[in-house]
Amino acid sequence: MFETTFITLFPEAFPGPLGVSILERARKEGIWDWETIQLREFGLGKHRNVDAPPTGGGAGMVLRPDVAAAALDSIVTTNKHLIYLSPRGKPFTQEMAREYAESPGLVMFCGRFEGLDQRVIETHGLEEVSMGDFVLAGGEVAAMALTEAVVRLLPGVAGNADSLSEESFENGLLEHDQYTLPRQWGPYGTPDVLLSGDHKRIAEWRLNSAKALTKQRRPDLYAAYSETHDIQAPETGDEHY
Amino acid sequence: MFETTFITLFPEAFPGPLGVSILERARKEGIWDWETIQLREFGLGKHRNVDAPPTGGGAGMVLRPDVAAAALDSIVTTNKHLIYLSPRGKPFTQEMAREYAESPGLVMFCGRFEGLDQRVIETHGLEEVSMGDFVLAGGEVAAMALTEAVVRLLPGVAGNADSLSEESFENGLLEHDQYTLPRQWGPYGTPDVLLSGDHKRIAEWRLNSAKALTKQRRPDLYAAYSETHDIQAPETGDEHY
Repeated sequence: MFETTFITLFPEAFPGPLGVSILERARKEGIWDWETIQLREFGLGKHRNVDAPPTGGGAGMVLRPDVAAAALDSIVTTNKHLIYLSPRGKPFTQEMAREYAESPGLVMFCGRFEGLDQRVIETHGLEEVSMGDFVLAGGEVAAMALTEAVVRLLPGVAGNADSLSEESFENGLLEHDQYTLPRQWGPYGTPDVLLSGDHKRIAEWRLNSAKALTKQRRPDLYAAYSETHDIQAPETGDEHY
Repeated sequence: MFETTFITLFPEAFPGPLGVSILERARKEGIWDWETIQLREFGLGKHRNVDAPPTGGGAGMVLRPDVAAAALDSIVTTNKHLIYLSPRGKPFTQEMAREYAESPGLVMFCGRFEGLDQRVIETHGLEEVSMGDFVLAGGEVAAMALTEAVVRLLPGVAGNADSLSEESFENGLLEHDQYTLPRQWGPYGTPDVLLSGDHKRIAEWRLNSAKALTKQRRPDLYAAYSETHDIQAPETGDEHY
């Protein structure tokens, strides 16, 4: 059982997208589960305060280290990844998702306000992980996205290992263009090669589609791919478009 | 009123993280609203089919262009961004969040399975936007994250313009370390400068904290920052750590 724990001021945000489709089915099958820890239960005083102004001045409020530590210390975290979702963190990638999927579970601290006191990040060895170069109102939706990416990689969740190995990032490229029924949609047909039944040509077309898209949209990924693969004249594939 | 529409097979995933805290307050105040469109309502036949196998073979199912188009065509989308959440897309950034926040709203198509037929992406001019280099089970959580990043920038939502201008990415750097109460937490104190009351020194310390963190964690951001700023010996700030 892969266990996920969300430390949050807004447990009512859960499960949201984690409660549907293959993730909910996998949870019912006992492959994984989730729980929330209400940070405010560890708050101080009559008002259960969890935050205070930034030391040195400035806008907003910062989450207290003593309160955050009490919440973290309430959980058995053996061998689990302790993650603090923050735009300051390491950008989350499919490689990290695969690594997390090998662990017994995740504990995710969902920040709010101006962030979390630096001391608790250091004393508890929190991994700072970012969803990308944008700012959210809180860590909850980032923690959900991270969880969804990890849980779908657990054995038995996505159902089809072939499907996982063909998708974006698994081979260093964005996924090729997809077509389905109807073959002819108004004036728009389907590339002939996909109707040819020639599996080798179809595989070539798809690889070229993936290469061309990656080269156009993500020169960073394409450069990394080119370094590790024998690039067979990808430009000639563009004519299929 | 900033309008957001989610086209999805899983409307029950909403509002999730969009239904709490400042986003829910802003919705109640009439600053924005959200709605879901159930894609299956546009499905074909008795079983309301929305997908079919990939043309040319391969694992999984692909969303049909005719069904997706019918759902998109059911909405008035004037001047709104039409977004298809996909790992193949342009990585979402704070700059895009600011641009979207200037528009009348967003229509977000949440993919599932192996993706969406390429023809409807082209005929409807869908902007392909990615949350990052990882794969989700569906576009719903990505659409929520995008929405949260955009809505919090709408006037009156986050409450404090100062707070917005100091945070990660607004000045090209990750946000500086934060400290709050207690001043002394067990053996762990607070950097002296933050207790000095000297606003100039505090501002310098924070800028150096932001620079040092960005340089260490995100050399890509730091390089871009360095090109446009006069870098005043950022290394001397490191001694404060």
